[in-house]
Amino acid sequence: MSLTVVGSIAFDAIKTPFGERERILGGAATHFSLAASFFTNVRVVGPVGDDFGEDEYAVLHARGVNTDDIEYVEGGRTFFWAGEYEYDLNSAKTLDTQLNVFGDFQPKLSEGSRNSEMLFLANIQPDLQREVREQSSGAQVVALDSMNYWIESARDSLVKTIGTVDLVFLNDAELRMLTEEPNLVRATRKVMEMGPSVVVAKQGEYGAALFTDDAFFALPAFPLETVVDPTGAGDSFAGGFLGYLDSAGRSLDEGTLRRAMTYGSTLASFWVEAFGSERGQELTREEIDDRYEMFRRITTIESVPTG
Amino acid sequence: MSLTVVGSIAFDAIKTPFGERERILGGAATHFSLAASFFTNVRVVGPVGDDFGEDEYAVLHARGVNTDDIEYVEGGRTFFWAGEYEYDLNSAKTLDTQLNVFGDFQPKLSEGSRNSEMLFLANIQPDLQREVREQSSGAQVVALDSMNYWIESARDSLVKTIGTVDLVFLNDAELRMLTEEPNLVRATRKVMEMGPSVVVAKQGEYGAALFTDDAFFALPAFPLETVVDPTGAGDSFAGGFLGYLDSAGRSLDEGTLRRAMTYGSTLASFWVEAFGSERGQELTREEIDDRYEMFRRITTIESVPTG
Repeated sequence: MSLTVVGSIAFDAIKTPFGERERILGGAATHFSLAASFFTNVRVVGPVGDDFGEDEYAVLHARGVNTDDIEYVEGGRTFFWAGEYEYDLNSAKTLDTQLNVFGDFQPKLSEGSRNSEMLFLANIQPDLQREVREQSSGAQVVALDSMNYWIESARDSLVKTIGTVDLVFLNDAELRMLTEEPNLVRATRKVMEMGPSVVVAKQGEYGAALFTDDAFFALPAFPLETVVDPTGAGDSFAGGFLGYLDSAGRSLDEGTLRRAMTYGSTLASFWVEAFGSERGQELTREEIDDRYEMFRRITTIESVPTG
Repeated sequence: MSLTVVGSIAFDAIKTPFGERERILGGAATHFSLAASFFTNVRVVGPVGDDFGEDEYAVLHARGVNTDDIEYVEGGRTFFWAGEYEYDLNSAKTLDTQLNVFGDFQPKLSEGSRNSEMLFLANIQPDLQREVREQSSGAQVVALDSMNYWIESARDSLVKTIGTVDLVFLNDAELRMLTEEPNLVRATRKVMEMGPSVVVAKQGEYGAALFTDDAFFALPAFPLETVVDPTGAGDSFAGGFLGYLDSAGRSLDEGTLRRAMTYGSTLASFWVEAFGSERGQELTREEIDDRYEMFRRITTIESVPTG
């Protein structure tokens, strides 16, 4: 079993009401890789510059992530993002974006990455996502994430790319924007008509909902008294979800998908407890499975009592 | 078993993208009574005017609601509200509010209503809620709802009233406003420090979450392709919740509260399928129990597979 992720590798500067970090490892592919690494073999594909060194590789290697396809651009600098969260932590204000080597990124997958049974196309330009998907001849299950920027600026290409994948991860607002349908159930149905058989609606502090042709499943976010930094929550969610799915044989049956949702939510709940991926770097599989069980307990409904 | 509700009885004019009604029966106490009537004996306390006639009483009597404490104000007119919902149905724009007889409402409970084992203080001025609470010598369990208007204009009185009840129903924004705490887990803890042992956070399209001193439970909203009119959703939720709770002996143990949450969400999901209480007037207990079981199915997580 093996899972390839293609997307951004970055340095982030993050400020929240609970503290700040001037320069920590970030990027969708990084968060995703670390979260998925608790379940399966992960290969990460993305560009870095001269400023990406031993310490950064060490974080990925400590979790067993295969970094052979990290593309080093000599003389370049790694993608940099600076953002600040207000007190409610619900939305980030971007203070600075320096695309650097990410701006000219043309993903080239090695044979190993092309042969992964599962592929995650993190949030990059939809034409590039499609090129990667076409290179990935071994991929039995493919998922993608995207964002409002691509829905607005490259909708046709994004719809075409969505037609080539099995699972779509988008937040509620993006699903509504993409389909121009305010009702979420109808919106996800429209996305499934584009091709995918599974749509996962990310709902931030309200958790996530999963839609298939004949099933629905929703999970609240794990109740936390202290959320330090929501950066990477969505990517760690997808990482936990797809990492588990790969480890479970990639079947898209309802039971497996529900467990995948729960592992995704579990990973995301740890991710937001500290800055960037700091909590994920310290995490153990035992902690993950304990919280999975807590999720079960806080969502169990008893039968209708008779009488 | 018996449940008394004190609150508004109204006529509503409602416009949504799916149609409109010029004048239908509304008001928090009405929606609550009808929803709770599927589970227990309900007594409704609220003021009406000359325009409230046989047809309106008939709706309540058809569901067995005791209307002895509906206070008829001769020469007065019933509370009237006109509102419009935009396409996303998430918030109502108030077009007209005529308090009429509700503006001078001084609740007077008959002996029957005072002796109900359970009391719901719907959203009225907090001083009045407290007076009703003091009259209700038979009430073993008391719950209240409120709104942003009272949090802003009568906070001290509201906090005092909250100190006299067992359960609080508020939406997320109201809980945060009341406690000045953006984290919902901490916000509900602060409300419990005021006195109540149970806080229910209403979350609209995302369902509801229940907090006690040592338990948490969340339930998504039932996924509906067609939401016609959200008016009364929160009151029918509270009605289903507290109606079931009364029928189950008013124990605040975790299993009973989870079932109450599920019945509340079930009632609210029917309520929004048609204008005002129209769907609730046609509803059967069998439909309610079928949807309860569907809720169980869409929220069940399987155990962590071993191996």
